[in-house]
Amino acid sequence: MSVREVFQKELFEVQERLVDLSESVTEIMEKASLAFLNSDVKKAEEAIALSEINEERALVIDELAIRVLSRQSPVARDLRVLVAALRISASLERMGALAGHIATIARFRYPESAVPESLRKTFSEMGALDSALGRKLSQLLRNTDVDLARSIQAEDARVDELHRSVFDHVLSPEWKENAMFTVDVTLASRYHERFADHVVDISSKVAYLTTGEWSEIE
Amino acid sequence: MSVREVFQKELFEVQERLVDLSESVTEIMEKASLAFLNSDVKKAEEAIALSEINEERALVIDELAIRVLSRQSPVARDLRVLVAALRISASLERMGALAGHIATIARFRYPESAVPESLRKTFSEMGALDSALGRKLSQLLRNTDVDLARSIQAEDARVDELHRSVFDHVLSPEWKENAMFTVDVTLASRYHERFADHVVDISSKVAYLTTGEWSEIE
Repeated sequence: MSVREVFQKELFEVQERLVDLSESVTEIMEKASLAFLNSDVKKAEEAIALSEINEERALVIDELAIRVLSRQSPVARDLRVLVAALRISASLERMGALAGHIATIARFRYPESAVPESLRKTFSEMGALDSALGRKLSQLLRNTDVDLARSIQAEDARVDELHRSVFDHVLSPEWKENAMFTVDVTLASRYHERFADHVVDISSKVAYLTTGEWSEIE
Repeated sequence: MSVREVFQKELFEVQERLVDLSESVTEIMEKASLAFLNSDVKKAEEAIALSEINEERALVIDELAIRVLSRQSPVARDLRVLVAALRISASLERMGALAGHIATIARFRYPESAVPESLRKTFSEMGALDSALGRKLSQLLRNTDVDLARSIQAEDARVDELHRSVFDHVLSPEWKENAMFTVDVTLASRYHERFADHVVDISSKVAYLTTGEWSEIE
């Protein structure tokens, strides 16, 4: 194999591992969301266990990317692809942790529910959107499809809207729940929102790789 | 200048800019903490304005680091220093945003206070610890002093303890404040805690650069 072919092969491995990690992150969010909505402690445990491995897997990708940087000394676009990979793995690590936090809230409150009835629909939609965003992210990392990046931004906007609606509800006179519910839904809503933010961050980086216009889309 | 001298000069510039950014992040936290504790809307505005520039400054460091990677194709320790710089700038960007969020809570609640009397002492200590951690971080980025990294971990442990104490208090029967206070102190406490976490993350990376043992201290 030529040096170029070796490089392409190594770059492909980095990409494959990022896709795998994004799929695992989506699985953590799916389990965490079910755990949170249904007080399902088994799902919560599964999500937490996965989120613990997640961090290590992100570190492995970083080491791989650094090894490629070191051996191949890429420049121009190739260099930027690898730098983007480092940033993407950092975001995926955080996303796994955030989904893990949602599961931890569910486990901590078990056998009671952390979600009051009046917010069940909102959190159900947020969890579904985050999971869908995770799946789109995997697609995006496979294809670098810019249109997908734009639809991700629209879904993130809806997550933001739901996040604000949680606060509007909690701060309204109808809210009669105790401080425990208030704390749980405040943090859970924040975690859902940050999860979606990271998907947008990553999709900007992928879009950058395609368009070469970093600052425009950041 | 030799290629090596040019590289050292460029690396020094990256380091200098990271130190500058860490000093700016500390300033944002100092102002945000005062704004939050004293309902000082002027300080809040200043912190928010600084946090908005902060993101751009982190991006400039990234571009500089990528340029150095591209021109010099460093390997071994030099490569790892630059990769660490990219990660450190990402953490500094988040720290500026987190401190900005604390200021935003203060501004949003102005002229009323976002901190109930019963938690003033706790948040005052958290804000002071975060500011001290920010200053230690600047020192660390200047000297790569591993002992300082260890003292940073101890201070972070105290921030975590205070963070837990906020929840203990909010979930205790003594807590009589409304949901608005509950939401504000929950988020503000989380932002303080995450700010300190980032300092620990960065100090691990700096310690790594000195000891070469990444996994051990991560």
